[in-house]
Amino acid sequence: MLKFDAEKFVTEGEKAYSLRADIEQIALKVQKEGISNIFFTASGGSNAVMQPFNYWMESKSSIPSYLLTAADFLAVGSKKLNKNSIVILLSKSGDTKETVALAKKMEQLGIRTISIVNKDNTPLAHHSTYAVNTFGYHPQELAFYFLIGKIMQVNNEFNDYEQFADELKSLPGDMNIVAQEVDSKAKEFAEKYQNADYQIWVGSGDLWGTTYNYSMCVLEESQWLRTKSVSSPEFFHGTFELVEKDVPVVLLESEGATRPLDERVANFATKYTNQFTKFDMKEFTLSHISTKFRPIVEPSVMWAALRRVSLHLEDIRDHPLTKRRYYRVVDY
Amino acid sequence: MLKFDAEKFVTEGEKAYSLRADIEQIALKVQKEGISNIFFTASGGSNAVMQPFNYWMESKSSIPSYLLTAADFLAVGSKKLNKNSIVILLSKSGDTKETVALAKKMEQLGIRTISIVNKDNTPLAHHSTYAVNTFGYHPQELAFYFLIGKIMQVNNEFNDYEQFADELKSLPGDMNIVAQEVDSKAKEFAEKYQNADYQIWVGSGDLWGTTYNYSMCVLEESQWLRTKSVSSPEFFHGTFELVEKDVPVVLLESEGATRPLDERVANFATKYTNQFTKFDMKEFTLSHISTKFRPIVEPSVMWAALRRVSLHLEDIRDHPLTKRRYYRVVDY
Repeated sequence: MLKFDAEKFVTEGEKAYSLRADIEQIALKVQKEGISNIFFTASGGSNAVMQPFNYWMESKSSIPSYLLTAADFLAVGSKKLNKNSIVILLSKSGDTKETVALAKKMEQLGIRTISIVNKDNTPLAHHSTYAVNTFGYHPQELAFYFLIGKIMQVNNEFNDYEQFADELKSLPGDMNIVAQEVDSKAKEFAEKYQNADYQIWVGSGDLWGTTYNYSMCVLEESQWLRTKSVSSPEFFHGTFELVEKDVPVVLLESEGATRPLDERVANFATKYTNQFTKFDMKEFTLSHISTKFRPIVEPSVMWAALRRVSLHLEDIRDHPLTKRRYYRVVDY
Repeated sequence: MLKFDAEKFVTEGEKAYSLRADIEQIALKVQKEGISNIFFTASGGSNAVMQPFNYWMESKSSIPSYLLTAADFLAVGSKKLNKNSIVILLSKSGDTKETVALAKKMEQLGIRTISIVNKDNTPLAHHSTYAVNTFGYHPQELAFYFLIGKIMQVNNEFNDYEQFADELKSLPGDMNIVAQEVDSKAKEFAEKYQNADYQIWVGSGDLWGTTYNYSMCVLEESQWLRTKSVSSPEFFHGTFELVEKDVPVVLLESEGATRPLDERVANFATKYTNQFTKFDMKEFTLSHISTKFRPIVEPSVMWAALRRVSLHLEDIRDHPLTKRRYYRVVDY
């Protein structure tokens, strides 16, 4: 299978999993000190990676939480920031300008920060109260499952946390199975839409971050393909007027609470375009994850599926995923 | 000037303004009873109209507030909903399915709702604790300035409220001036991009709702033109890789706290495309609005400017703004 190293992925997952105890300690410590609210903040794709966790807290936790870009947060501030706030930051490079600037600002204000980075010795880690180095291991979400899951457990909002965290041990292996299951479909998709002049991407709930991120940070940023991403309920308030026989529509179908909203999109798109594709969470085999936890892990699993599309796209189009016109190439 | 009735707009504005005392009474009443948090929720464009008010509260108020679509709220719920929550809803028709269903759910749960509608005798008003009928008068935002402004005043977060609310009396007249100032530019824009196969729309802060809304609910829904809308900081994390010499980029430039983020977009776009347009709040004359309040009224004022683009588009393209393929035309 193209650029697929199942064993390496599992080994990396084990290393990411080994951070569990340390991350839970951070969660316990900040909970003990008190949490008035939580800010998830980063830049671009990293912000999108945190969307499901803000979504999770919005629906299931009494702790107020907010998701915003570091640049906005820096420019605008928030009256809700106080000594008991927690600011959670994510930057793979650990040197994203606005994210680092925000950590410095919080340091000055005496507000606790927890940063997730992928490298040793980064400016972001240096200016954070707590820093977790995940060394780029996948799934990226693992650190957040431990951090947010533990905080919610202590807050009596996730009593199954221990079972969930134990099952996560098998997540990387299960993601490999999904990658294999979806690969031929991913290749077919990449071949079919490699030169599409426009694509509509739709998703909802905790897959909204993935929808937004894949459309903007893979198709646009890495492949220079034009997209519009829109959430499943919002699709019917504008974008769907653009759907015609030959317009590509892609749905990332959730198995969480918003699935009925996704199904409505599927029904519509099936009727009005012959270029409809869906990647449906329900179709993926996850042998080691209990049914009740499947919706929580879907951002990781959907990433594993879409990663196959990305690898086929760069191969078929002879356009490396790392190729940029502007990002870190020119000054702006 | 094409389809422009300045006098009618001012008369309508006076009627909208006459609702001030009633709306302030509602604000005082709910404040007195206690507010633990505020949910702004609606569907499509109506949600986008409320974005600036959630943004305003996020940065300037200690009261937690959340913005989400009615469909998501219904599907997912929120652990933060409690007896002291306020749910604010907006539906012009007063019969938007999910918005009405949400009001009914809140009614069952005993949670206070405040609805803004544009018609008498609507299902939404019937199922709301408080309903304000603005009869479709513009600016649509007026009711929210009174409601949120007053709540924040009582909360000691907007001491200039009375002065602000007094000045709003002249806002419709000032918006007419802006419409006249921008009209020739709007016409030129409509002529130039009437057949554009793709446009990137960028904005930030309290103009993000306008950016999203104009792109999706006017260009896509009413004119069937392909767009991508993205916030100014996010622009640099994907979408900007699509900018080339002939790609249209439109910036709605704020004069609020996020203006530096917009300026960065302007600098980039000026360099890499010859199809860059900006509608800059700073260029608009608002004779009766104090400098300190200009950023607060910019969603209304930018609407007045963009409305000129819409009217020229439907005229030049011979495509009425009311024409739909699907919305309220077919079942879905």
